Parts: sequence; structure tokens; C-alpha cells
Amino acid sequence: MNPLSMPPRLLMGPGPITVDPRVLQAMSTQLVGQYDPTMTAAMNEVMELYRGVFRTANEQTFLVDGTSRAGIEAALVSLLEPGDRVLVPVFGRFGHLLVEIAQRCGAEVHTLHRSWGEVFDPAEIETALQQVQPKVLAIVQGDTSTTMCQPLAEIGALCRAHGVISYVDATASLGGNHFVTDDWGIDVVTAGLQKCLGGPSGSAPITLSPVAVAMINARKHIEAGIATDSDTPSGSRIASNYFVLAQIMDYWGPRRLNHHTEATSLLYAARECARLLLDEGLDAAVARHGLHGTAMLEGLRGLGLTPFGDPTHKMTNVAAVHIPDGVDGEKVRTALLDDFGIEIGMSFGPLAGKVWRVGTMAYNARKDAVLTTLAALEQVLRSEGATVTAGGGVGAAREVYA
Amino acid sequence: MNPLSMPPRLLMGPGPITVDPRVLQAMSTQLVGQYDPTMTAAMNEVMELYRGVFRTANEQTFLVDGTSRAGIEAALVSLLEPGDRVLVPVFGRFGHLLVEIAQRCGAEVHTLHRSWGEVFDPAEIETALQQVQPKVLAIVQGDTSTTMCQPLAEIGALCRAHGVISYVDATASLGGNHFVTDDWGIDVVTAGLQKCLGGPSGSAPITLSPVAVAMINARKHIEAGIATDSDTPSGSRIASNYFVLAQIMDYWGPRRLNHHTEATSLLYAARECARLLLDEGLDAAVARHGLHGTAMLEGLRGLGLTPFGDPTHKMTNVAAVHIPDGVDGEKVRTALLDDFGIEIGMSFGPLAGKVWRVGTMAYNARKDAVLTTLAALEQVLRSEGATVTAGGGVGAAREVYA
Repeated sequence: MNPLSMPPRLLMGPGPITVDPRVLQAMSTQLVGQYDPTMTAAMNEVMELYRGVFRTANEQTFLVDGTSRAGIEAALVSLLEPGDRVLVPVFGRFGHLLVEIAQRCGAEVHTLHRSWGEVFDPAEIETALQQVQPKVLAIVQGDTSTTMCQPLAEIGALCRAHGVISYVDATASLGGNHFVTDDWGIDVVTAGLQKCLGGPSGSAPITLSPVAVAMINARKHIEAGIATDSDTPSGSRIASNYFVLAQIMDYWGPRRLNHHTEATSLLYAARECARLLLDEGLDAAVARHGLHGTAMLEGLRGLGLTPFGDPTHKMTNVAAVHIPDGVDGEKVRTALLDDFGIEIGMSFGPLAGKVWRVGTMAYNARKDAVLTTLAALEQVLRSEGATVTAGGGVGAAREVYA
Repeated sequence: MNPLSMPPRLLMGPGPITVDPRVLQAMSTQLVGQYDPTMTAAMNEVMELYRGVFRTANEQTFLVDGTSRAGIEAALVSLLEPGDRVLVPVFGRFGHLLVEIAQRCGAEVHTLHRSWGEVFDPAEIETALQQVQPKVLAIVQGDTSTTMCQPLAEIGALCRAHGVISYVDATASLGGNHFVTDDWGIDVVTAGLQKCLGGPSGSAPITLSPVAVAMINARKHIEAGIATDSDTPSGSRIASNYFVLAQIMDYWGPRRLNHHTEATSLLYAARECARLLLDEGLDAAVARHGLHGTAMLEGLRGLGLTPFGDPTHKMTNVAAVHIPDGVDGEKVRTALLDDFGIEIGMSFGPLAGKVWRVGTMAYNARKDAVLTTLAALEQVLRSEGATVTAGGGVGAAREVYA
């Protein structure tokens, strides 16, 4: 078989997106040993960097070795004992995923639902918190399936007022939309690298408040073969070894207890993603996503396309537009990829076949990426028989930039 | 914070080891989209390559996105329902890990034990199979904690004769020790990249026999949000979404059902690891590990060190030697790292502080790596007050090469 040879792509879908070349370079750095002082120093740096990214003082801020949903599962399986009540407000596909994972943890799952394209009012969530009295509230910040961004500024405080642990899946939003873990009083947050952080899928940053940590450590069982006499097991053992955060915290902490072998190359990537983001500045990065996201949305409108969903609650980093009547959405997507090397996305569930999703995130939240995509989309739409104004997309985006 | 800068290391421990530079280069390849035809083609190539590596015709041969123990947990949580009996012969730390993971799956775990440094006789295992009548036998091939390699040629057939599903953790051995999935009749095998495959930690190749696949699909529940009307759930749902092999097989298969977002950079790495191994030839790679492993072992003997454990059942790719009386094992390890940039390992449990473990695997199963390590170790041992024959290590290794 031949060596790997992949074609150049401009990834303008809902993620994964084109990785920042500096992250690719970091990932090609040669390994050091698992407990090499330079490795444990890099682990500590990653913890510190992600405290910055999550805007938290939480000591327990580290990486779960797996894709974003590994981070979600690690959080939920560690927080929820079988029979515990959890409340999940669902406003898109990834809300369903939280339900699915919580059910597999054996939790008693209560849901709230909003139509795809809308978000929840905090008052609705408070009423449900009072009725359900859950142990945990689990909610997505930005659901790429609908492009909606749930306001969270009041949710953490509501949860604390009702004695509920709050968990947020910020996979698709972190780095491109405002998020402040401590100021909002969120207990547990997980993310991924492949959206606004500009890295590849495969590593899931997580942060845990002291209250969440205490809850998790109340069910600590160090595995046989490395436990010492002072490791008295407590509480019911969680139904996973891979996601046992109580032990993983001892791997990232001063004890350096052996658990998995850290996925070093992805740790290098995660380090560089956070370093670049903090070097730019979180507010500047959110503003950049806002600018290029707006330019893309206006450009899509300028091509005659109609945005989907509540415009006041759209994520900065991805736009959804209705596929015009009579146009084959998948054919347009394929032509963009085959003729221009540009990828955009479709969606799931009730939106399958109905909208395109166009991302502007991380490395690709750039003017040239936006204008190139709009120029190519104009050509493809015309070929596929849609009515488009010549130059309407690029022109509208240029007005945003001017 | 500064860009990443890691020191050069020669990783001669039990793994992770120095990654083949061609694998690092593959990992720095830019991403394509998750369902780009070139991505799904690369996934198919990875499946085909790992059929070669595992020496199997199993259709279901793919990657689990996580470190080696993610592969183990995916296998066990998918095969074992709560209350199922599993037999685990334990001859080192990683046998304990199989016990731990099976317990967390809720299985009724039965164990056999051998002193560290020994392996099991197939007759012992057959007797236990008859007594316990487990659903699954779970066993490690090569346990790096002791450097022992369990003979498996008869185990698969014994399991099939007794109607037992066999699972083998080949993380530390695959690629450097003889392993033939189909000829031995093993049902499920998992591995990692960071040992004899020459890659980084973070991706776990797995292969599943048709019988194992049927057992797993009997408990298939497609997640809400992407399930269709024809997806009738069957059996009891497994206690994990991340490790739900029934759904992951539909992601790797023609249905391309969305599950996680594949960790593309690690898929690139896994592809290159397998490509290089098959290009060399599996038998040639095992012979190379045998040659350099023998040279290292004889070199260590030539330095006056005594091998640990049953020499007839040693893995090719890692040697353990007793730390001489009066020598501080950790101090030697640190001096090797600080003064020569070479890493060797200590061990766990009953062997903690008692042996050094020296690996010769994948990219580092090379003459210059062996001789450099022995030359440096001679210097360090002398500094630390051990009695060593000048040139005894390199000389003995050279005799193996001559």
C-alpha cells in the first residue's frame, strides 16, 4: 500500500475543520517518556492553559484521551450513579446524545424539549429544576445540528441555588463563543479540539469544580495491581475504568498514578491549540469568529439563501441555511468538494436534507476562506439551477468587512 | 507560553517508545472531512491493513479512538453482560487490569494466578474452563510488567471446544511476537500503537470474529437523534455509548452511521504503522525484534546483570533484569535520562524497585539503539558503584550480531 496522500481541502463545515498548521507541526514532535520530567511539565502546562481557555481556577482541568463524546461520557459516568435523576434540556442532536449517555449510565433521565432552531429561556429551566429536583443538569452550549447557542449566564447560578450540579458540553462552541466557567458557576465542562480550538478530534479537555471533584472522589476505587494499602475504596464503583476520573486526576496530579498511557501527540496538539488561542486572546478570538461568521451569514443571504433558526441565538462559528426548493443539497455539497475542494455540511434528524451548515472556525475563521467559499458556492448554485445574484455573496461579505 | 520544545530522547523502556519518523510525518498530514470519500477510503485501507497485522479475515477490524485500555474496555463491555462469568488468568499487572475492567462491567470474574515471571500451561486453563464455564476467557499475550509472553497457540481452540469466547490483549506484543488470530481461533483481539507498532498512544486496533460480532449485535441500540424506524433495539443496552461497538461497526461499515468524529490524525498514524510493518513483513519484524531483544538481553548479562523471569517465555521486545544489591534503581534511571537522554523503565507491584525493564521495539529495535544504550548503562552503573566489566555489555551484544 502507498504512503498516505490526502487531497487539499478547505473544511468549511460544522467540524472537524482544517487544523492550524502550527498544531500539525506540534503533533509531529517526537515523544518523550510517560513520566519524563519534560512530559509531566507539559501536562502541567496543559492544565494551566486550559484553565485559561475555560476561564476557571479549577485545579482539576485536564484532558480525557478520546473524542469529545469521551469527555461527555467521562463526566456523566463519574457524576451519575444508577438511579440518579438528571435533567437534560434538548434543543438539537447533541442534547439527544446527552440523554443517550445518561441513560447508559443508568440515570433516571428527565428531558425538556425545544424545536430545532430555538433555545431555552432560563425560567423554563428553573421550573423544571424545581419539579424534577435532579442531581445533575446536563446541557449543550452550542448544538451544531441546529447552530443554536444556549444562553448559560444564569444557568449555573440557578443550579447552585437548587443544589444541582451543572454540566455543559461546550465542544462546538468553546473558543468561538463567550464562555466563562467560574463567573457562570458551571461545575463541569467538556470540549473537543476539532471545532473553534483548531485541532484534530481525539482529545477532550475537561474542567471540574471542587464540588464535582469531591462528589467524584467519594466513589474512588484505585485499580488492583497499583493500589496501595492506603487506597481504601469508597462508595459504589463507577461502571468504567477508562473514564474513572478519580484515578485519572491522580495521573494528572502530583501522585502521577499510572492509568492509561497519555496520548502524547494529542497532548502536544491540545497544548498548541490552547497556546494559540490564549496568545490571540479569548475575547479577540470570539470577536474574530463573530466577524467572519457574520460575513459568511450575510454572504449566504447575498446569494439568496435563507438562514435557519433564531438569528439572535446563533453560534458565531456555524451558519445553517435552507436548501432552496428544487436544488439537490447533496449534489451541491459534492460539486463544491469535487470541483473546488471545499467542504460544507448537511444536518441530522428533522433537518436532514433541509439545510446546509457552513462553518467559519478556528484557522478557517479568515476572510480569504469566507470569500473563496462564497465565490465557489455561487458557481455551484448557478450550475445546479438555483437563482443567484452574480457577486451577491462575496459582495455582501465584503460589506461586512468594510 | 512558549511553543512546544521537547528534548531528544531514546526511549528504551517498556513503551511508549520513539515513534518512527515516518509515522510522525503521517500524523502531520492535514485533515479531510469526516465523510470525505478520501477519508472513508482511508478508513477502509486501515481495516484491510489491520486484517494483515492481526492475520485475520475478520471483516470487523478497525480502530477504537482511545489508548490501549479503551480497546480493552470496548471489547469487554460489549461482550460481557452484568452477571456473565469471565475467566481471567493473571500473570502480571495487565491481567489485573482485565479483572478490574471486567468487574466494572458487572461480570462475575474468576481468576487464575501465576507468580510474576511465569506463564500458564494450557492444561491449567482448560481445567479452569471446565470448572468455571465462563462466557468469555480474557487473557494478556505479553505482559510488560513481567516481560512474559503467554503461549496462546492452543488457547483459542480450547475455548472453541468449550463454547467460550476468547479475548486477547495483545497491546504490548503485537508486531514483535508471533500472533495469528485466525489460526489460533481467537475471537477478539485489541492492541495499541505505542509498542511494537512504532506509533504514539491514543488509538486501539481491534478485530472481532463473526461469532463475537453476532453476540455484540444482539445488544444493538442505535442512539436517539440518528436512529431510523428500522433500527429496532435488541437485548440489554451496554453501559457505554463511547464503546458501543455495535454502533461503531456501523460507522466503519457501509452505513457510515455517525458516532464519534474519528481522530483522523491518529488514524493516519495507525495507517502508517501498519503499512510499515506489513511492508517489512510480519515474520521479518518478529525476527528483528528477536534479534535485537536477544542482543540487548545478552548485553545486559554482559554487564553483570541477572535476567528476571522464565527465559523461555520472554517477550522479544522487552527484557527485565534485577537491580543489583546496593544500587539505587531510580538513580540509575535518572542518570541515564539526564546524562545520555536514554529512558529505561522500572516495574509495578511485586517488582516495584526490583527490576529495570529495557525495551527494544519498533523503530528502536535497531543495533545502534541497543549498543548506545548498553554503552551508556555501563557508564552509569560504574558511576553508581556497581561492578561492571568494561565493554562487557557492548561486547556481548556484538557477539549476538556477529
